[in-house]
Amino acid sequence: MVQIAIMGLGTVGTGVARVVAENAAQIERKLGEPLQVKTVLVRHFKDGPYRQLMTDDFRKIEEDGAIRVVVETIGGVDAAYEYTKRALNAGKHVVTANKQLVAEKGCELLALAKKRGVNYLFEASVGGGIPVLHPLTQCMAANRIDEVYGILNGTSNYILTRMVRTGAFFSDALREAQEKGYAEADPSADVDGIDAGRKICILADLAFGRQVDPADVPMEGIRNLSLRDVKIVQRGGYRVKLLGRAVRLPGNGRTAYVAPHLVPEEHPLANVEDVFNAVMVRGNATGEVMFYGKGAGEMPTASACVADVMEALQASPRREEIGWEPETEGFADPMTLRGRWYFRIDGSLTDAAAAFGQVEVLSEDGETAFLTEPLSGLEAAKQAEGLRQLARMRVLG
Amino acid sequence: MVQIAIMGLGTVGTGVARVVAENAAQIERKLGEPLQVKTVLVRHFKDGPYRQLMTDDFRKIEEDGAIRVVVETIGGVDAAYEYTKRALNAGKHVVTANKQLVAEKGCELLALAKKRGVNYLFEASVGGGIPVLHPLTQCMAANRIDEVYGILNGTSNYILTRMVRTGAFFSDALREAQEKGYAEADPSADVDGIDAGRKICILADLAFGRQVDPADVPMEGIRNLSLRDVKIVQRGGYRVKLLGRAVRLPGNGRTAYVAPHLVPEEHPLANVEDVFNAVMVRGNATGEVMFYGKGAGEMPTASACVADVMEALQASPRREEIGWEPETEGFADPMTLRGRWYFRIDGSLTDAAAAFGQVEVLSEDGETAFLTEPLSGLEAAKQAEGLRQLARMRVLG
Repeated sequence: MVQIAIMGLGTVGTGVARVVAENAAQIERKLGEPLQVKTVLVRHFKDGPYRQLMTDDFRKIEEDGAIRVVVETIGGVDAAYEYTKRALNAGKHVVTANKQLVAEKGCELLALAKKRGVNYLFEASVGGGIPVLHPLTQCMAANRIDEVYGILNGTSNYILTRMVRTGAFFSDALREAQEKGYAEADPSADVDGIDAGRKICILADLAFGRQVDPADVPMEGIRNLSLRDVKIVQRGGYRVKLLGRAVRLPGNGRTAYVAPHLVPEEHPLANVEDVFNAVMVRGNATGEVMFYGKGAGEMPTASACVADVMEALQASPRREEIGWEPETEGFADPMTLRGRWYFRIDGSLTDAAAAFGQVEVLSEDGETAFLTEPLSGLEAAKQAEGLRQLARMRVLG
Repeated sequence: MVQIAIMGLGTVGTGVARVVAENAAQIERKLGEPLQVKTVLVRHFKDGPYRQLMTDDFRKIEEDGAIRVVVETIGGVDAAYEYTKRALNAGKHVVTANKQLVAEKGCELLALAKKRGVNYLFEASVGGGIPVLHPLTQCMAANRIDEVYGILNGTSNYILTRMVRTGAFFSDALREAQEKGYAEADPSADVDGIDAGRKICILADLAFGRQVDPADVPMEGIRNLSLRDVKIVQRGGYRVKLLGRAVRLPGNGRTAYVAPHLVPEEHPLANVEDVFNAVMVRGNATGEVMFYGKGAGEMPTASACVADVMEALQASPRREEIGWEPETEGFADPMTLRGRWYFRIDGSLTDAAAAFGQVEVLSEDGETAFLTEPLSGLEAAKQAEGLRQLARMRVLG
């Protein structure tokens, strides 16, 4: 019998308790012994099936030698950070879905876990139930990872899908997402690219082996995206997708950012719709592989946490290869990355050609929408200086 | 310094040596020490970069205590089976891409590995460089796996893509695949569903925890697929894809088979083209997740082998959760599975309706092509008995 604790009984925490109960047979077969939730840390006691297990005193977990793994689903940094450190210091494995904590403090917490000879695992922090981090660090371990990019936020992808399919404006699509429970009352973390930004930081940390500071990563969401651009690019054979992207540069260089992109309709990411997520990983031996599925939700995310609990117990003494160095040097401004750009301007094709030379026109209808030749972001911004710009986006590939 | 041996120096074996050399820095960083190929087993000595390492005597590997991992890329059963057993008995980890050996003898070899306290790993046997088996057994360990299905053979998917895109006949598309090196002179294993069949057996073994005997698994390829059906279903909103499919049934029941299917064009598998593979896994908590990438090729497959070498060394003493029981009972005839069916008959819509009641017509043009309501394969066959059948395929979903 292995006993664990859950900290926080929100959606994911409740899901962890449910998965442990509902899939007890599968878990016991793989683990070789039963798994049991012994203690649940809450701020306020509530009635329900886990009432007997609840405590509001973290020391009940910290000082309980029978608890070998702690699942942290508190979220945010403050209490989650404090309790995670104390749990690791008490020699317990910690498993989490908390992307903010991993993105900001993961390097330090992994170093602490290493010092204490335990695991700190966080598969559920990126892609919910979709296996991404283990395949990246383990199955692709013999690769140099050159790029990771993908659709990392289901809420904004749902909104974009509604805009494309039904011609809904952003505001209406957001309201619909909120009614369906896909977006929160304050949707900022989702629609402003912050959630995707934390995830691309974690992916970049693991892919390149060095810390990427979320504060260095430009995060642009879809709040200012115009339905007009969605429609123009669609007619031109593209879909607008919010992508997080991390690219290896020569030496220790690397960059990462979140922004809406034009994705060619034949690209596998173009057909990733609704709340689905997909992560592409490009390794120098494997080429591109994609991981696809529902990126959020109680049971998928919880099942990834429980799999990490099992992994933490089985990877004895610990998984050494999951970690990265604290050094943040070598992080470059993503505006140095080259690629094609989409512009919509209040101006003519002649204006566009004067600024950019050769362009590919997507629409001329009182405004001009066009694609440039490959340019760095800095070059694109500079050459566009004299134009009355209405929209600007990167083109993938 | 960790020393390994490679058995067989064909495409994958050569790739393993290349990956070890080219990605030495990445491998050393993750492994904590350098990895070196010490010995290569060949049948006939050849000049080339690995001439110094070659031996034609397996005992040079078997008796060399410095060799901790053996990569078997001989293929087939005979010698590969014999040497794998001897290497495991000598206390060496064994890693392979040999799907035939794993499908036929995996259960026995895993039991032997367990007895000797070493790992037998075979991520590369399914999906080449695409991480599939580890995510299935490890990241989804907290799920009950209910179904696994996918495009498991790149050669036949390439041929189908040519038939759809360019209207090529099977014979011409096959010749094109052979010219490009995607299909062998004897293409039987690829186009007759045998390669996909071995892979679905391995997936079913791991997903359901019990042996699936390849001899029990009906394997139907694309050799008899008519271009006419490809075109009819395409106009109806479907793509023809060769799928391997394994389904959990109540109790210890399970079934598996390989056959061409109609895949709705909005399904993620419909857009998997050319030599790409994709595997869908449905877990009771995670829902459906998909793994996508190039399913073959020297470097992708080799990099998966090298990742397994690293995993074998790091998973100390061994990965207990990779394995299955020898019991083959409970395997059901896939003809008991229910679903919609596509038929093309030399007959009228009245004939179709007389046999099946409600049908959905796809084409009436001197023949009648239609979809039935959900039926088991046995029911579909029985109801179609009086019809002059020209084609019959399952519809996915």
